[in-house]
Amino acid sequence: MLNKQDSQFIETILTFWDHLNSQQKSMLLENAMLMNYQRGETIHQGENDCVGVLLIKSGELRTYILSEDGRDITLYRIGANEFCILSASCILQNITFDVHIDAEQDCEIILINSAIFQKICNENIYAENFSYKAAIDRFSDVMWAMQQILFMSFDKRLTIFLLDEVARTGSNTIVMTHEQIAKYIGSAREVVSRMLKYFENEGYVHLSRGKIEVIDKVQLRDII
Amino acid sequence: MLNKQDSQFIETILTFWDHLNSQQKSMLLENAMLMNYQRGETIHQGENDCVGVLLIKSGELRTYILSEDGRDITLYRIGANEFCILSASCILQNITFDVHIDAEQDCEIILINSAIFQKICNENIYAENFSYKAAIDRFSDVMWAMQQILFMSFDKRLTIFLLDEVARTGSNTIVMTHEQIAKYIGSAREVVSRMLKYFENEGYVHLSRGKIEVIDKVQLRDII
Repeated sequence: MLNKQDSQFIETILTFWDHLNSQQKSMLLENAMLMNYQRGETIHQGENDCVGVLLIKSGELRTYILSEDGRDITLYRIGANEFCILSASCILQNITFDVHIDAEQDCEIILINSAIFQKICNENIYAENFSYKAAIDRFSDVMWAMQQILFMSFDKRLTIFLLDEVARTGSNTIVMTHEQIAKYIGSAREVVSRMLKYFENEGYVHLSRGKIEVIDKVQLRDII
Repeated sequence: MLNKQDSQFIETILTFWDHLNSQQKSMLLENAMLMNYQRGETIHQGENDCVGVLLIKSGELRTYILSEDGRDITLYRIGANEFCILSASCILQNITFDVHIDAEQDCEIILINSAIFQKICNENIYAENFSYKAAIDRFSDVMWAMQQILFMSFDKRLTIFLLDEVARTGSNTIVMTHEQIAKYIGSAREVVSRMLKYFENEGYVHLSRGKIEVIDKVQLRDII
């Protein structure tokens, strides 16, 4: 049984909560479990598995696809306060692909059983809608990853810009908004923000309001 | 104004129809237009454009992404009785990527204005749910395309394409240039030509100007 804080966490993340009846609410809470996954642990693997939906309290998950010969391609990473539906893709009948999900850092996760979550999605259109919406967020992430992989130019452009700025100013801290950078390199703010976030996850830069601190020039140069 | 048959077509495709009130129904019908697009015509191009949702009466659409240097990668094709939401991705706020859509064959399409469709999605959760679901169908298509591109050896990809075309058209003769095939499968014309030449030498296909005749499906299937 979950403690009060964890129950409240569920109610916050599942924004359809107020549309559930009391039976559905207790069914969800009774079938939720607090899980701890260690860094590197596999949480979900492909089609043989429909572990359940994941509500991430802390830590980070990496989602990827795996080829027959063992190559893997990262699709996206998600972190605290995010909701993972692709670990329970059996719930959404029109999702016909499978992904792998690993704990990228130690994670505290609330896991809700697939069968229960599916039952609620079938009964309640708000719950179903929430699940679709969550899946489409990931669709956008995957398209982004795909474009990076296929066309491989934007990361190079951004890297060149950052290193040029560092060289020009003689400081590792670039005082600029993402919007300004987007203008300089002829891109969109969202694209710049996403790529910078990716660079931060990889440990190349540290982001704070209106500033980018370059912390690993060697790795950045490898991108070019 | 649409004729009765076209109105009925809309009611059939938009499976949330019965959940609309009469005002919403007439708003949809009054803002739907029958459009004819010629083979090769561009229907939707990237982010500057939110043309509307498309209900395909006949013909075929190809959806692809385009790199800055002009390479394109086919994501999926859809045909008669299918619904296209990505031509109106402005409707779904969490879709942050953009695609291009061309008429692959002459098309008869019912186009519903984005602003009107969005208004109805905002008002009616069944309409919103339908839109999400339609987008997720495409998510599955895109994941499939991505796996093809990333992981499958090129001879398999080309073979799958040829056999799919034969199955789809019911003819052993594929009327397409090598350039067109390269676009579909995310490769280069030279690579396609070389592999087709190899297939011809092996007796799987016969090549002539603008055409590929599949002559040994059994051997081709062995490649997959």
